[in-house]
Amino acid sequence: MKLYSYFRSSASYRVRIALALKELPFQYEAVHLLKDGGQQLSPEYRRVNPDGIVPALEDGPEVLTQSLAIIEYLNEMYPEPPLLPRSPADRAYVRSVALQVACEIHPVDNLRVLQYLKKNFGISDEQKSQWYRHWIDVGFGSLEMRLKEERRVGDFVFGDTPTLADVCLVPQVWNAQRFDIPLDSYPTIKRIADNAMALEALKQAEPANQPDAKG
Amino acid sequence: MKLYSYFRSSASYRVRIALALKELPFQYEAVHLLKDGGQQLSPEYRRVNPDGIVPALEDGPEVLTQSLAIIEYLNEMYPEPPLLPRSPADRAYVRSVALQVACEIHPVDNLRVLQYLKKNFGISDEQKSQWYRHWIDVGFGSLEMRLKEERRVGDFVFGDTPTLADVCLVPQVWNAQRFDIPLDSYPTIKRIADNAMALEALKQAEPANQPDAKG
Repeated sequence: MKLYSYFRSSASYRVRIALALKELPFQYEAVHLLKDGGQQLSPEYRRVNPDGIVPALEDGPEVLTQSLAIIEYLNEMYPEPPLLPRSPADRAYVRSVALQVACEIHPVDNLRVLQYLKKNFGISDEQKSQWYRHWIDVGFGSLEMRLKEERRVGDFVFGDTPTLADVCLVPQVWNAQRFDIPLDSYPTIKRIADNAMALEALKQAEPANQPDAKG
Repeated sequence: MKLYSYFRSSASYRVRIALALKELPFQYEAVHLLKDGGQQLSPEYRRVNPDGIVPALEDGPEVLTQSLAIIEYLNEMYPEPPLLPRSPADRAYVRSVALQVACEIHPVDNLRVLQYLKKNFGISDEQKSQWYRHWIDVGFGSLEMRLKEERRVGDFVFGDTPTLADVCLVPQVWNAQRFDIPLDSYPTIKRIADNAMALEALKQAEPANQPDAKG
């Protein structure tokens, strides 16, 4: 398998975590979002993924896109260890936490959105930080409210082994920390992310440990 | 089952389509996003869904949130007709199209994002329209490029029966039409959406046909 990835991209980070948890070997192909006007927009990369976004995963003849679709695929093809529970209701719970991060927080704080705000609305760096933080606070605020009451929470979002939900949560927490956003108001999220980040597989997947981190 | 829904919400519309395709009866509970400062933020609704967003689906003791998690749940509990193909690679393709809409386009053009832009950055109605249209054009542009080359496309995104991908695509097309965004540059998307919207189940799910459309 070949993973097209940018070390700091949350969506790439999610797929790296899933690959590491399942101990699947892969070739790392760096796509730098800030070099050459965005390598993800180059004709070469567009031939792999017409959407011009990372990640993309090549598995034999298949090119897969969209991190959550890739991870569901990996989980169906390589079931161990499972990243989803067994009952439909529990699976819905895990997926809903993953989607809360992937649909409510991440897209609005994405690099290309921040670039648009600066270029077209001329917002200041201060306004950009407020925007970034606002959507983290709205999203993590809701999620913390849910998780702190949720009987299925253990060391991780569902019980004591990592699932798709933790796979999405960790990169968002990493991002928040990168932007110095305090997480004191989100103790459950913080505790779960700390537990996950302590796993060897998660360390392998960390942005700082990717080949393009030193570029 | 009881569906908490707002007639114009894309995410609610997706779940209504899935319920209609599977011919599942449900009770409609309107949550008006613009009345009373946003009924989704009321303490009553927050007891159902702490996130304060629609939709939410009650099925017996379970309260499910996040439209894609709800639809995957419905598909696992009530498998006929299936909303996902059988092979992992085809499922990944269908999910990736659904996620392109649900993660790349919809969240950035969401009501609460538009409200933030107006309130905090003081953007004009003209700038708001440009923003809205920009993300539709970026998203539909990529998606059209993909779909027009894709051998799996038939009357619908995957073959000749609707899947999760069409379930997500239709509400986004409906939204674009509502904002008078021309779809001439996206003939494949337009053709698929027209095919889907012609189905009886899809008509039932349309915003104009919901109890709260006349409120």
